[in-house]
Amino acid sequence: MFPGSDTGSLAGAPAATAVFTTVLTEGPVSRVGLARRLGLSSAAVTKAARPLIELGYLHELAATERTGPGAGRPASPLAVRADREFFVGVKITADELIGVICDLCAQVRATARRPLTDTDVDSVLAEVGRLVDGLLDTPPEHRHRTRRLGLSLSGDVDHTTGLVRYSPFLHWRHVPLGERAARLTGLAVTVENDVKALTAAEHWFGEGVGAESFALVTVGTGIGCGLVVNGRLVSGAYGVAGEIGHVVVDASGPDCHCGGRGCVESIAGTDAIVAQARERTGHPDLTLDEAVTLARGGHELLRGVFTRAGNAIGCGIAAVANLVGPTRIVVSGEGLAAYDLFDAPIRTSFERQAFGAAARCPLTIRPLPFEEWARGAAAVSIQSLVLP
Amino acid sequence: MFPGSDTGSLAGAPAATAVFTTVLTEGPVSRVGLARRLGLSSAAVTKAARPLIELGYLHELAATERTGPGAGRPASPLAVRADREFFVGVKITADELIGVICDLCAQVRATARRPLTDTDVDSVLAEVGRLVDGLLDTPPEHRHRTRRLGLSLSGDVDHTTGLVRYSPFLHWRHVPLGERAARLTGLAVTVENDVKALTAAEHWFGEGVGAESFALVTVGTGIGCGLVVNGRLVSGAYGVAGEIGHVVVDASGPDCHCGGRGCVESIAGTDAIVAQARERTGHPDLTLDEAVTLARGGHELLRGVFTRAGNAIGCGIAAVANLVGPTRIVVSGEGLAAYDLFDAPIRTSFERQAFGAAARCPLTIRPLPFEEWARGAAAVSIQSLVLP
Repeated sequence: MFPGSDTGSLAGAPAATAVFTTVLTEGPVSRVGLARRLGLSSAAVTKAARPLIELGYLHELAATERTGPGAGRPASPLAVRADREFFVGVKITADELIGVICDLCAQVRATARRPLTDTDVDSVLAEVGRLVDGLLDTPPEHRHRTRRLGLSLSGDVDHTTGLVRYSPFLHWRHVPLGERAARLTGLAVTVENDVKALTAAEHWFGEGVGAESFALVTVGTGIGCGLVVNGRLVSGAYGVAGEIGHVVVDASGPDCHCGGRGCVESIAGTDAIVAQARERTGHPDLTLDEAVTLARGGHELLRGVFTRAGNAIGCGIAAVANLVGPTRIVVSGEGLAAYDLFDAPIRTSFERQAFGAAARCPLTIRPLPFEEWARGAAAVSIQSLVLP
Repeated sequence: MFPGSDTGSLAGAPAATAVFTTVLTEGPVSRVGLARRLGLSSAAVTKAARPLIELGYLHELAATERTGPGAGRPASPLAVRADREFFVGVKITADELIGVICDLCAQVRATARRPLTDTDVDSVLAEVGRLVDGLLDTPPEHRHRTRRLGLSLSGDVDHTTGLVRYSPFLHWRHVPLGERAARLTGLAVTVENDVKALTAAEHWFGEGVGAESFALVTVGTGIGCGLVVNGRLVSGAYGVAGEIGHVVVDASGPDCHCGGRGCVESIAGTDAIVAQARERTGHPDLTLDEAVTLARGGHELLRGVFTRAGNAIGCGIAAVANLVGPTRIVVSGEGLAAYDLFDAPIRTSFERQAFGAAARCPLTIRPLPFEEWARGAAAVSIQSLVLP
């Protein structure tokens, strides 16, 4: 993270971090509940919570009456003050910036977009500056309570240093994005891979809350996956993890741009779908939207393309379930705008290929509003306030 | 774990567990080194180590001279007393028991085997009792320093309760193996899935030491995988994890006994190899050993069977590397007695399908002496002494 102005993380002793994280992600919890959940003494919980209350991040809800056997003092649950601080999140794509401003509970308060006409670093940063500036004024009282900015983009990102090692869509290599954005905006900046950021948002504020393990699969031009295992995001010893798009599912399938063959992405990525649709229809200019429309209208050959793609995704998801056994799997992404064409084949092949009890893992398959990506970036920024 | 007689785990405060685990798995470490490594004060390390020294599990090595700039007091590294306690490990297969007795550092001190003529629970337990009894007397002084027994077997095992939920090879369902073996032997018993046990041994005492993430792939009748991610064994939210044998690598491949199609095991499991070898040669009685001999002699069709199997394993391993990015991967198991036929195709397909930097993950491919499985069971028993 790159400090702009006043950026102190709240992370203190491990107990304080645990208390804040629990209340933030799981909602109001009594001190007794926190002590039990975290294996701490009541005194330790009170001590950990005090500075967070004094700084206005936590507050005590009105005591709720407890009745019945064993009722002691009425419990006053601790809760987060969502509007104590705001966080800007920006997702950078090749042709557009998508921005949001969120409160401490990752609720989106405002959104904004800016087109990108150029992908060189200076131009993109200038537009990021304008986008952030606009968001900080909607409404103006947000500005003085916002100290942090999260950026996300697809590619190989070093979250620790804010360095973009390689982003193929932007043609960036070794861009110190965190440092430059901090200098530009005066905010404390985090940079994260977009799929990992989205996974962080689901883990703390979405379907992954409380899960020891969790997977988020994103379907679109690329097919990615964020994994939480043993309570933490999996980052990969060599910086590679969650590359479900490059799991082989068909040894005799098409060549993939990665150098492999029969990868999920080579069958189910947007480009692969368009190429197959053009080949099957003989229309070299067919677009994805046209292919979707025709398939929905009952065009058998095109339905077959989407079915094959859905099957490949289902096999990839089954590989995740068989190998790491997550509590649940969410499948999402802009590719799932054609959700109706994918849903059944994904589920069918998942159920066939999931091994034994792994098939009990619930799948949520849903489209993803593009602002969610920006909210992911904001969620990583929230984590940088809370975690050491 | 099921207590027989005196079975107290040594686990005390988290600091004590961390100190003992570090010295046990990484070898002699000075107090200063421990404090630095574990983020503890020197006083906390000394306090944590004291009872372990008093009980004879740790001792101080002779001070080593330190010279050069910054040298303070000579460092006296803490080390484990390997012969303080012994542990029996037994792997149960369908036709044989393989047993070892290990010291605290998981060094094998003696081995023994007993054939099984029957797989009903009573017969197997009776043989386990005889095997353990023999091991405790080799030499006799082992007996009074052995309080723990680890059992391992293939199948679905609830490690926490010692229950064997389902073991296909033994045709067991819902067998309270831990409880019964504890009653029989008077020892504290742990029960674990055999692949997970082997992974535990590699993680604490083998190539996985110190790795935040690590994978062990076993090749034989079944193809399994033990995974360590974020420092802990992955167990799967629904009890399924590491099922690399049921990752799809060829959507148009053979049907698998699991109900799926084109799984790694349906191409590279021992039964699949024998079936393909018989089909390609037209000899319905060809054995695996004969197929290996013929392939080694240059029989092209049979070499093709092993190459295809190796490719399938390599694709499965690449899926592990692409999804969780382990620090290293060990490929082993009785199937790798034919290691020379598998090695090249495993590596070739791994390298082709590993995504980007994931290909940097080192593969160790080696045969596995059968006693290693029993040592895995003993390693889990050692962990039950050390961990809470």
